[in-house]
Amino acid sequence: METMYWENGTLMLLDQTKLPGKVEYIQCRDYETVAEAIRNLRVRGAPAIGAAAAYGLVLGVRSSGAANREQLLARAREVADALTSTRPTAVNLSWALNRLLARLEASTAADPQELTELLISEAHAIYREDLEGNKRIGRFGQELVPHGARILTHCNAGALATAGYGTALGVIRAAHEAGKQVSVYADETRPLLQGARLTTWELIQEQIPVTLITDNMAAYLMARGMVDLVVVGADRIAANGDVANKIGTYGLAVLAKEHGLPFYVAAPLSTVDFSLASGNDIPIEEREPGEVTHLAGIPVAPPGVRVWNPAFDVTPARLVTAIITDRGVVRPPYGESLAGLLRVGK
Amino acid sequence: METMYWENGTLMLLDQTKLPGKVEYIQCRDYETVAEAIRNLRVRGAPAIGAAAAYGLVLGVRSSGAANREQLLARAREVADALTSTRPTAVNLSWALNRLLARLEASTAADPQELTELLISEAHAIYREDLEGNKRIGRFGQELVPHGARILTHCNAGALATAGYGTALGVIRAAHEAGKQVSVYADETRPLLQGARLTTWELIQEQIPVTLITDNMAAYLMARGMVDLVVVGADRIAANGDVANKIGTYGLAVLAKEHGLPFYVAAPLSTVDFSLASGNDIPIEEREPGEVTHLAGIPVAPPGVRVWNPAFDVTPARLVTAIITDRGVVRPPYGESLAGLLRVGK
Repeated sequence: METMYWENGTLMLLDQTKLPGKVEYIQCRDYETVAEAIRNLRVRGAPAIGAAAAYGLVLGVRSSGAANREQLLARAREVADALTSTRPTAVNLSWALNRLLARLEASTAADPQELTELLISEAHAIYREDLEGNKRIGRFGQELVPHGARILTHCNAGALATAGYGTALGVIRAAHEAGKQVSVYADETRPLLQGARLTTWELIQEQIPVTLITDNMAAYLMARGMVDLVVVGADRIAANGDVANKIGTYGLAVLAKEHGLPFYVAAPLSTVDFSLASGNDIPIEEREPGEVTHLAGIPVAPPGVRVWNPAFDVTPARLVTAIITDRGVVRPPYGESLAGLLRVGK
Repeated sequence: METMYWENGTLMLLDQTKLPGKVEYIQCRDYETVAEAIRNLRVRGAPAIGAAAAYGLVLGVRSSGAANREQLLARAREVADALTSTRPTAVNLSWALNRLLARLEASTAADPQELTELLISEAHAIYREDLEGNKRIGRFGQELVPHGARILTHCNAGALATAGYGTALGVIRAAHEAGKQVSVYADETRPLLQGARLTTWELIQEQIPVTLITDNMAAYLMARGMVDLVVVGADRIAANGDVANKIGTYGLAVLAKEHGLPFYVAAPLSTVDFSLASGNDIPIEEREPGEVTHLAGIPVAPPGVRVWNPAFDVTPARLVTAIITDRGVVRPPYGESLAGLLRVGK
């Protein structure tokens, strides 16, 4: 099962809103289809939307009929802006698009065809590097996982949230592959139920034991001594180690501290936004009330009720035991340890 | 809107599983219908199931055709056992049934008809006292609520969970009636969404401003400084002040402590089980996986996924700022302060 793949000049995107009921791919031949898919969470997860947006930029530039280098660059910037605006919190989106734009600008080629080929190869590189990076995250992270560990995770930071293998689920997968006999509790993750729909589905396929809970059961699970550690992904990490991730992550981090459990964040270095001093500067997306008031079109609340629906929250660095990246595991103080990773070779 | 009423020898129960979509009453003419309604949460909330069970006992005894006092008492005990077994956590259920049985046993009447009338009047007394008790809870509790307070509540501890007025929502209602301009955040309360379906519905009817959130948003709400206090109900309180309440309550209490917010529990004295030294002894009901994996019949998780579904959790007394009862507000140490309430007149 691929989250996305490139075939005959088309981006094939697994429509995650249909899972686990249906496995259905969207054929993206233009960037607007990719933008719609990102906005409506058909593809989601910070690394996955980075890779999808990169391919989206290729599609937008290719169809533009740009006659020369200047026209192509202008078009690329316009498409990148449109794709960046689809979702504000995950930094991987702008990171991937900026990487493609930088590649264009660094090239001296004049031929639009040649420049487009450059973009395609850079998008492929982002995809491939994410997959490889996740395997390294898994390798580094699994060393932190004791034999027989019972692991709580939130949302979906799995193969479906990335080019493949996953970040938080990559750590779990690697521990499983190392024969550690781990088991998992998956928060269902309201409102969009990525834990119930996607994480359990991935783990069942991998034959890793998984038990589904509602988000509000995590505290009692910890109090009953039923969990040994927490590992989650991230949508953006500030330079000081503050972590933006799916709504509910911050509460889990507080609860992990209260129960003396390690709280790990797994994410590639591309998720770290060194331009932001702290999590206070991370934009938090607020989404439609309908995500909370309706489920599969069925109302679960009175009509017109007021709703607050932030899609993410910010976990302060002081609650994070370690950040597991594709360049190694870092610990507090994160200001220094994260910056140090920039000097580590891949 | 009445949660239940007694009319022409029939218990009319509002079917809360249909709310907020439909307002529909179940006509209960036998105790089995009442037992089914309690088991399947058509009526729910500790005080409400206590009152409903009391009427159920009346129905079970009345239809038995007992020829004498002994037969009637035997039948009453049998029906009480059946009703007690419907749900294990809320103590008000057995409290109400034991009160009816004690009333029978204390009477010297021999006539089955006369004994049945006694039961009816005792059931009415339980109902009436609950309603009056909730108004006292409201009066005592609203003194703890500052003007303009933004209040977070969980599940539904409102009129629908009681004979009327509510416990936690009774406090909110009384503060509103006192002109304090309060506003409420309601946790949706997975899996059965009593917050989304019932609490918002009650508050909208009372014109008290309410905003719906998913359970996992509460932590971020607190971190953003958007809430001033938490108030919840209780299903059973141990002699030391440990509180069993809807799953998710314990997590909220930990979060309230982390953010320096008062955490109040509102419940009548009938919810205190003085026979239990601590919350460790409170039986916690675990319910069907289908409540988590399906919503209105629609699957939201892969078929056959393992589920943990405790309906309640236990909040240790150390996290409870005060318990607001129908005989006054008590504070730690609860072992002494709760016992002291037994000496307070109504």
